[in-house]
Amino acid sequence: MTKSSEICKLEIEYKEQPYGVCAAKGFFVAAGYAGIRKVARDDLVLLWSDKPAEAAGVLTTNQVKAWCVQNNAERLKAGGVEAILCFAGNANACNGELGAKADLEIARKTQELLEQHGKATRGVLTASTGVIGRKLASEKIINKLPELVAGLAKSNDSAARAIMTTDLVPKSFALQINAAGKTFHVGGIAKGSGMIAPNMATMLAFITTDLEVPARALQTEIERVTDRTFNCISVDGDTSTNDMVLVLANGASDLKWADYKEAFSAALEKVCQELALMVARDGEGATKLVHVTVRGARTESDGKKIARTIADSPLVKTACFGNDPNWGRILAAAGRAGVSFDVKEVSVRLAGVEIFRAGEPTNYVPDDVSAKMKSKDLTIDFEFINGSAHTARMWTCDFSYDYVKINADYGT
Amino acid sequence: MTKSSEICKLEIEYKEQPYGVCAAKGFFVAAGYAGIRKVARDDLVLLWSDKPAEAAGVLTTNQVKAWCVQNNAERLKAGGVEAILCFAGNANACNGELGAKADLEIARKTQELLEQHGKATRGVLTASTGVIGRKLASEKIINKLPELVAGLAKSNDSAARAIMTTDLVPKSFALQINAAGKTFHVGGIAKGSGMIAPNMATMLAFITTDLEVPARALQTEIERVTDRTFNCISVDGDTSTNDMVLVLANGASDLKWADYKEAFSAALEKVCQELALMVARDGEGATKLVHVTVRGARTESDGKKIARTIADSPLVKTACFGNDPNWGRILAAAGRAGVSFDVKEVSVRLAGVEIFRAGEPTNYVPDDVSAKMKSKDLTIDFEFINGSAHTARMWTCDFSYDYVKINADYGT
Repeated sequence: MTKSSEICKLEIEYKEQPYGVCAAKGFFVAAGYAGIRKVARDDLVLLWSDKPAEAAGVLTTNQVKAWCVQNNAERLKAGGVEAILCFAGNANACNGELGAKADLEIARKTQELLEQHGKATRGVLTASTGVIGRKLASEKIINKLPELVAGLAKSNDSAARAIMTTDLVPKSFALQINAAGKTFHVGGIAKGSGMIAPNMATMLAFITTDLEVPARALQTEIERVTDRTFNCISVDGDTSTNDMVLVLANGASDLKWADYKEAFSAALEKVCQELALMVARDGEGATKLVHVTVRGARTESDGKKIARTIADSPLVKTACFGNDPNWGRILAAAGRAGVSFDVKEVSVRLAGVEIFRAGEPTNYVPDDVSAKMKSKDLTIDFEFINGSAHTARMWTCDFSYDYVKINADYGT
Repeated sequence: MTKSSEICKLEIEYKEQPYGVCAAKGFFVAAGYAGIRKVARDDLVLLWSDKPAEAAGVLTTNQVKAWCVQNNAERLKAGGVEAILCFAGNANACNGELGAKADLEIARKTQELLEQHGKATRGVLTASTGVIGRKLASEKIINKLPELVAGLAKSNDSAARAIMTTDLVPKSFALQINAAGKTFHVGGIAKGSGMIAPNMATMLAFITTDLEVPARALQTEIERVTDRTFNCISVDGDTSTNDMVLVLANGASDLKWADYKEAFSAALEKVCQELALMVARDGEGATKLVHVTVRGARTESDGKKIARTIADSPLVKTACFGNDPNWGRILAAAGRAGVSFDVKEVSVRLAGVEIFRAGEPTNYVPDDVSAKMKSKDLTIDFEFINGSAHTARMWTCDFSYDYVKINADYGT
């Protein structure tokens, strides 16, 4: 499918790519089962660039950080990263100094093996997801590494699946950007799991591009875009010990960022937004994606606070699951967001129907609204009548029986 | 049962009373079914003092306030209140000016009828709980009022039941304080419902005492005590449109506050704490009460932040429900509380067993901890090793399938 950008106003053609994290030239992946995960399903992914790459990333702000997060902070500072090694089934967090040593050993061994196979690698980032506080059987990972290094290929789906924990579907997306006859790519894979808001388990996203992007620009861009996409599904402030968004840029397209700044910004945002919405839609036990929009708040920050409080409210989320037009919960959530307002100033729409306006309910028909709520995409619009031009958006999922079921026996 | 105080160090004897909100001399209640609630179960309660009383209260801080909350703020300022009228089944919130008029009319009519029956009343407070945004059939309440006024008696259980929504058990508690041969009482009723943390539906508590307490002292005391009891079950910052704690003091014991300041403080706190724990234990779908204690944080505020974030975490709460010793979630919640610390400084105990200390897990036996978690009272202790003397406590409930079930179809 070819379509013009809706994000930026550039005359650029995007072409959706099926190859996710391998859509960009020069990136290769391999996945396999090392035995970290209890069930026999791939739990190990290696991503590698055959050209020197720059790396950037957004790491969890949680005070309790997995060893991969702590070590990646140093590795990103050092710069020059051609590989990411990720495993699922053990968070490698809060498990003492042995966990720290294991993370360093895994990165070192990955680099050694890549080089032994003639795959030049200056640095390796690590990522992990799973239960916190468990001893990591790092020898299982190290034993599996040779097979992965030998198997690096233009693949995607196996990698997207291997990083999943309680995700139901693999998540990947990529764009080919055609501008003035030239072409570059931005793509990636992600995993969600855990409830997305208010307390996610782990969110990981690995993005690649074959545009040549200086490390500093790459860092600025990934921070800006994460704030507008992954952080709009309630990641920030509620981050887990292992959350990270990593991006590698290897310049294999022979195009330079300086000539495609706006196109790259727009493409990176589009890729991250698509991945973020996939994560929200696949929240544990979720049956639908809930789009929360707040228009007209006095400041952008006020709008964001209200959108986030509505999106985080378990009472709103259970009502969404039950197709229950119990909009009082939306108002009550907005009312405790820390923003001063009068109900006479606001309008609330649920599934497109205005149900509350200027202090009182409209003459909506509850059964009609309930019927409209039975959709895979449910909208909640909170608007200040005659308000400002600010718009804040958040995405969340509904809250079902299955959320409780999944989380009541995850660790045992 | 007679026992000495554990709260204050005074040599005062408390005697637990069976009469809840009517334990104090001069207080009477009546309950009945007005037809506001869909199911035919009492939904209306009148509380009245036969002596002039002072009133104080803590009202919701939510920007979206029910009409009773808005009007009570004015009524408390005016002072001199002998009655509280409460109905369940309709929040009388966000339903336009007709809702405001209905609240005023109900209070006026209650006062008129009390006076017609020779029951002097200078002011009436109102309270309501139920679905937000519904038109209130106030005539049904007004038609039922004469029966309630005529039926005022030394009762308690019917009142405690009539204010319930999805509560499973009525909540009441009272103390008789015997000091130097003299006696006064503090008692009350409460309702919870909704999840207690992080997003409660409505919490109401009505407290009475026959000690003579000046209005200003009563207000100071109820604010202090609410902060240490009801607000420790995550009410503040997450208050609903209708939350309130009201207290009436009628002096019928012929004892004055000035002579029993410390005893009153301690008794009021004990009554509110017992009611608050009953509310937490009976959270929607709850199977157990979770006691979260944080010891040794650098400041009281830091300790409170960590305790609250642990108590509010759906992932912690579902693990408690599943008796799953997945303590990584406790550390991850603490890590996003906005308090800086290193995992090497902390110890975590779950159900009394130390499972994490100084950066790594102990040699605990998961099955043993899981077995110990199968208790109606589950403790989570988060301690800074060699920390300060500060202790912060929060109480919450676990998070079960039934929470989702109850909240997915409450309004329809």
